[in-house]
Amino acid sequence: MIVILKNNHNREQLESLINWLQEKGISIHTSIGDAHTILGLVGDTSKLDIDLIAALDIVEDVRRVQEPYKNANRKFHPEDTVIRVRNTQVGGGNLTIMAGPCSVESEEQVVAIAKAVKASGATMLRGGAFKPRTSPYSFQGLGARGIEYLKAAREETGLPIVTELMDLSQLPLFDDVDVIQIGARNMQNFDLLKAVGHQPKPVMIKRGMSATYEEWLMSAEYVMASGNENVILCERGIRTFESYTRNTLDLACIPVLRQLTHLPVVVDPSHATGKYWLVDPLAMGAVATGADGLLIEVHNDPAHALCDGPQSLKPEAFDALAKKLLKLHETVRTLEG
Amino acid sequence: MIVILKNNHNREQLESLINWLQEKGISIHTSIGDAHTILGLVGDTSKLDIDLIAALDIVEDVRRVQEPYKNANRKFHPEDTVIRVRNTQVGGGNLTIMAGPCSVESEEQVVAIAKAVKASGATMLRGGAFKPRTSPYSFQGLGARGIEYLKAAREETGLPIVTELMDLSQLPLFDDVDVIQIGARNMQNFDLLKAVGHQPKPVMIKRGMSATYEEWLMSAEYVMASGNENVILCERGIRTFESYTRNTLDLACIPVLRQLTHLPVVVDPSHATGKYWLVDPLAMGAVATGADGLLIEVHNDPAHALCDGPQSLKPEAFDALAKKLLKLHETVRTLEG
Amino acid sequence: MIVILKNNHNREQLESLINWLQEKGISIHTSIGDAHTILGLVGDTSKLDIDLIAALDIVEDVRRVQEPYKNANRKFHPEDTVIRVRNTQVGGGNLTIMAGPCSVESEEQVVAIAKAVKASGATMLRGGAFKPRTSPYSFQGLGARGIEYLKAAREETGLPIVTELMDLSQLPLFDDVDVIQIGARNMQNFDLLKAVGHQPKPVMIKRGMSATYEEWLMSAEYVMASGNENVILCERGIRTFESYTRNTLDLACIPVLRQLTHLPVVVDPSHATGKYWLVDPLAMGAVATGADGLLIEVHNDPAHALCDGPQSLKPEAFDALAKKLLKLHETVRTLEG
Amino acid sequence: MIVILKNNHNREQLESLINWLQEKGISIHTSIGDAHTILGLVGDTSKLDIDLIAALDIVEDVRRVQEPYKNANRKFHPEDTVIRVRNTQVGGGNLTIMAGPCSVESEEQVVAIAKAVKASGATMLRGGAFKPRTSPYSFQGLGARGIEYLKAAREETGLPIVTELMDLSQLPLFDDVDVIQIGARNMQNFDLLKAVGHQPKPVMIKRGMSATYEEWLMSAEYVMASGNENVILCERGIRTFESYTRNTLDLACIPVLRQLTHLPVVVDPSHATGKYWLVDPLAMGAVATGADGLLIEVHNDPAHALCDGPQSLKPEAFDALAKKLLKLHETVRTLEG
Repeated sequence: MIVILKNNHNREQLESLINWLQEKGISIHTSIGDAHTILGLVGDTSKLDIDLIAALDIVEDVRRVQEPYKNANRKFHPEDTVIRVRNTQVGGGNLTIMAGPCSVESEEQVVAIAKAVKASGATMLRGGAFKPRTSPYSFQGLGARGIEYLKAAREETGLPIVTELMDLSQLPLFDDVDVIQIGARNMQNFDLLKAVGHQPKPVMIKRGMSATYEEWLMSAEYVMASGNENVILCERGIRTFESYTRNTLDLACIPVLRQLTHLPVVVDPSHATGKYWLVDPLAMGAVATGADGLLIEVHNDPAHALCDGPQSLKPEAFDALAKKLLKLHETVRTLEG
Repeated sequence: MIVILKNNHNREQLESLINWLQEKGISIHTSIGDAHTILGLVGDTSKLDIDLIAALDIVEDVRRVQEPYKNANRKFHPEDTVIRVRNTQVGGGNLTIMAGPCSVESEEQVVAIAKAVKASGATMLRGGAFKPRTSPYSFQGLGARGIEYLKAAREETGLPIVTELMDLSQLPLFDDVDVIQIGARNMQNFDLLKAVGHQPKPVMIKRGMSATYEEWLMSAEYVMASGNENVILCERGIRTFESYTRNTLDLACIPVLRQLTHLPVVVDPSHATGKYWLVDPLAMGAVATGADGLLIEVHNDPAHALCDGPQSLKPEAFDALAKKLLKLHETVRTLEG
Repeated sequence: MIVILKNNHNREQLESLINWLQEKGISIHTSIGDAHTILGLVGDTSKLDIDLIAALDIVEDVRRVQEPYKNANRKFHPEDTVIRVRNTQVGGGNLTIMAGPCSVESEEQVVAIAKAVKASGATMLRGGAFKPRTSPYSFQGLGARGIEYLKAAREETGLPIVTELMDLSQLPLFDDVDVIQIGARNMQNFDLLKAVGHQPKPVMIKRGMSATYEEWLMSAEYVMASGNENVILCERGIRTFESYTRNTLDLACIPVLRQLTHLPVVVDPSHATGKYWLVDPLAMGAVATGADGLLIEVHNDPAHALCDGPQSLKPEAFDALAKKLLKLHETVRTLEG
Repeated sequence: MIVILKNNHNREQLESLINWLQEKGISIHTSIGDAHTILGLVGDTSKLDIDLIAALDIVEDVRRVQEPYKNANRKFHPEDTVIRVRNTQVGGGNLTIMAGPCSVESEEQVVAIAKAVKASGATMLRGGAFKPRTSPYSFQGLGARGIEYLKAAREETGLPIVTELMDLSQLPLFDDVDVIQIGARNMQNFDLLKAVGHQPKPVMIKRGMSATYEEWLMSAEYVMASGNENVILCERGIRTFESYTRNTLDLACIPVLRQLTHLPVVVDPSHATGKYWLVDPLAMGAVATGADGLLIEVHNDPAHALCDGPQSLKPEAFDALAKKLLKLHETVRTLEG
């Protein structure tokens, strides 16, 4: 950590700061320039409160040098994390395709979709039982019943299931779920993160709408610090000024996270764009950029969903896409050696 | 609601859409242009799923005309809501000043601050017992004990207390709190919003880091739709590209919300900027722009907080500011007639 | 265009608005609902000033239905535009690779890089002669001399050259340049756009740091409305809250622009991220998402540029990347059929 | 400047970097930690290219400590700059009110508005002769003729005139203008900034749509480094995700710039919000936050501008506002002592 002092800093306050830091086991290197005096703090600074130091009368600015996350940090864990989920795994070079409906609507619907997406090459079934909705007047999901339907679909197809947990009070219902999803709106619901950290199932954390890479990794750190190392990161678009798409998909996160962390990264082009015709090209882009997997909405019930369903691909479109993605993944792996 | 059809729309699908809408009690006005056919939907469209319609093959775009919130909408509730909190009230022309420490640290601390801020003109005591922290390694607040200390400070000073609820499992501890704060990170924790909607205490909802006015009002709508009409909105800055300040304080929200809703609006310049020296000028700006109140961090324990405490004002600085704000508020009220 | 009237609109003002619109050849369809009256405007609304109408006392909101751009609009020009540049072309299914140094530093430098990138598969040479720099104290480019060096490199290699025009007073120097680049900071320098619209050379318009798709297309429209139809769009990242990368590369722009316009789209991963190690994965992602080309910084003078040059690839790294990109492009073309 | 080295940095490269820096007169302090080695660079680092150093193989990160602007920096120029404009001045404690039409439409219009706003208390007349318009099909302003009309209005009222320069080729027409405005879209048109820096008239620089404080100050620095110290900064809202208002007005810029620079700061609430009914409350907020002045659109020709003109106040509304602002400014000055 680097502390930049104000020009006219009080000598006594500086000494008090230095003593306080030394008591915490930090050693200090001082650079005195014409315009600024700079303190280089050496030692374990991860427990220092950066805001506290920044607020001191004598301090102009504080800059962190060390990342504030440890368990999630590739520096301390150079090997890629590979997460075993039943008969499949996330990370480690294979392409995970999680597909399924936005909302679970009925057992027939979800079983039918599960069979279709499995035949196309999906490796996991996703579907919402508890649904975070902006409006209290919108359908809030089938809840516990939805989870039962997902299990029935797993029974039929063998596909592991991933579904969203919205509140820690629902946790007992997730005992037999394969991957617990934490939604973008809950990325900084710290009590929820601790709760899923205290149980062993893999956790997929969606990036918050306006979360930086560091904040996202700190949310992973909450889960890992509570004892659960099985964390998957899922990019689903960030909020920007551009409103043509629902969000702006940030594919640069893939190589950046590859550098910063050992955790696998999957991409959700459906929610990122909110338009079904953008799912195909952006899924292709995600695979070529190096994603470990994709989360894709598929809907099979055009009658119920009025005509063609919200922002989802139909099973036939998904089938064509999944086949392309698998071939692309193969080519990319060959090219990357 | 307005539905813009694609040029080459299929006649049959259009009829199926029109029938479906009419079954829902919506009547339809059609405008056929050279480039576009537009459907004007008249009736109660608040229950229609805009995403569903937007996803139809024949639809190019859908635009909402009616706001999706009702209880929070000034159109259906023209009078300002005034919220009674013990011996004071929020809204209705008086200036609410909520002041206190970011975190409750000890009974002595919070009682001392409460006495100081009351003497300066504060009308409510704020302080964090449960603290949402980006890092799992940071101090997470005193929890239940912190709430007890706040009550002790209320006992001594008569100031009503406002403090943050982080998870619905903590709700029983908030039985004797005066205003329940929902933090920015929980603005779309819908289970939490429903829970505070099912109890009668006033709820103060902080704006999410990247929440639009409409999303913010929809969160208020969650609380109100569950039965609790006592909602206060708190602006605390939004996330933008500018990183000099922690967030960008959006004072335009004050007159905009005044137009859209009848709920009172308070402003938190401390969290918005993250710098104590910006609290004074922005608190002044908030009052002149028409805020119903302010949320200001005050810290009295320079020894413990190392030197001067994180982003807080000292009691003396708060005293000077509070006096200025009350005078400014008087002048503004006179000028606005 | 759709005009939503206020509930309590004055009858006389409405008639005056309707008359005014009819005089402009617009016909009006009215939908009267309980909550709102909506006017559907049919006819050529592209000349109507949306801000003017929105400001009327009786108007609550105005929404455009038709895009405000015509020449750039795929609806009126369904075929892809393919731009011939000497012996190569941009668009039409082939992958354009524009490579070269950020700044032209000397004839030797630029000739050497030109030879290297040509050998690796580049189809165009890019290099800055006039450099927009945030600081007045930074190197501002070699200017006219830089353009001469680029021409020398073209002479040696046959590669067409693309370089940035910063002010219309420099235009005479660009007579023998192959593609004129308009930088992100000048995307809405309307006098400059008109000037390059009045000459015949292809123009590559970089997206402004915070430009929407529509604003970007309106800048293309400025050039095209002045008579020059040879416009290339170049995505170079947008400004968001995430500061780990210099900008956020928005690859969704590729399929979106493919839908909205017939103009070719190229991607600049070097400026988008500001980090050389992100160029490779994002160039791969851009090709798989369907980009018509790439703009890649390559620097060959490690001694001069201190060690390895700012955010550029070295020629060897570029060589490996270019080979991968060409193979990936082939695979993608096969997969897309 | 602080340079953070990678853990596994090559000894030789480090020495080459240190030698290179020392040749430039920089002295270096080294802090060796477990996780990182940090170089503190002391001396005049303003000419060092931060991107160049950041790109070195051995460097993990570079952080600037010193601000990159000098002429605009309050540290080197502690006194407030006060800019004399004919019989009035900007800065130095008085409230500048620049008012007038968005576009100059006719001599009658601008003279009439000038008389009205002068009577209400405006101290400067603003009006657009050259208009930057997003669409090539929109009215582009009266150009040279518009400037003549502004001068006629000055003749009648004595109000100094401020109007926008869009391209340096128009500069000769601005010889007799009192303040030259650089629009938000031209904030980083560096050739234009240099041109207005080489002439003596005061220059008002509007903040770019997504410009940081530092970038904005660097644009002022361009003008000042060219010899013209008379620079006014004008906040007009930044682009964020919130689209209810055209931009988000950032009033925090006022106290921040007060700290960073000695230049006066004025605020344009009309362009910031795009809605006339938000001008009044935000102008009040700007004055209470400490702005040196305001830029307010006023339009007097409801017949021509159809009903009430785009986003402008009518003269009567402006009259009421100006009177309130002057009284508020007086109160604020008294309160601030």
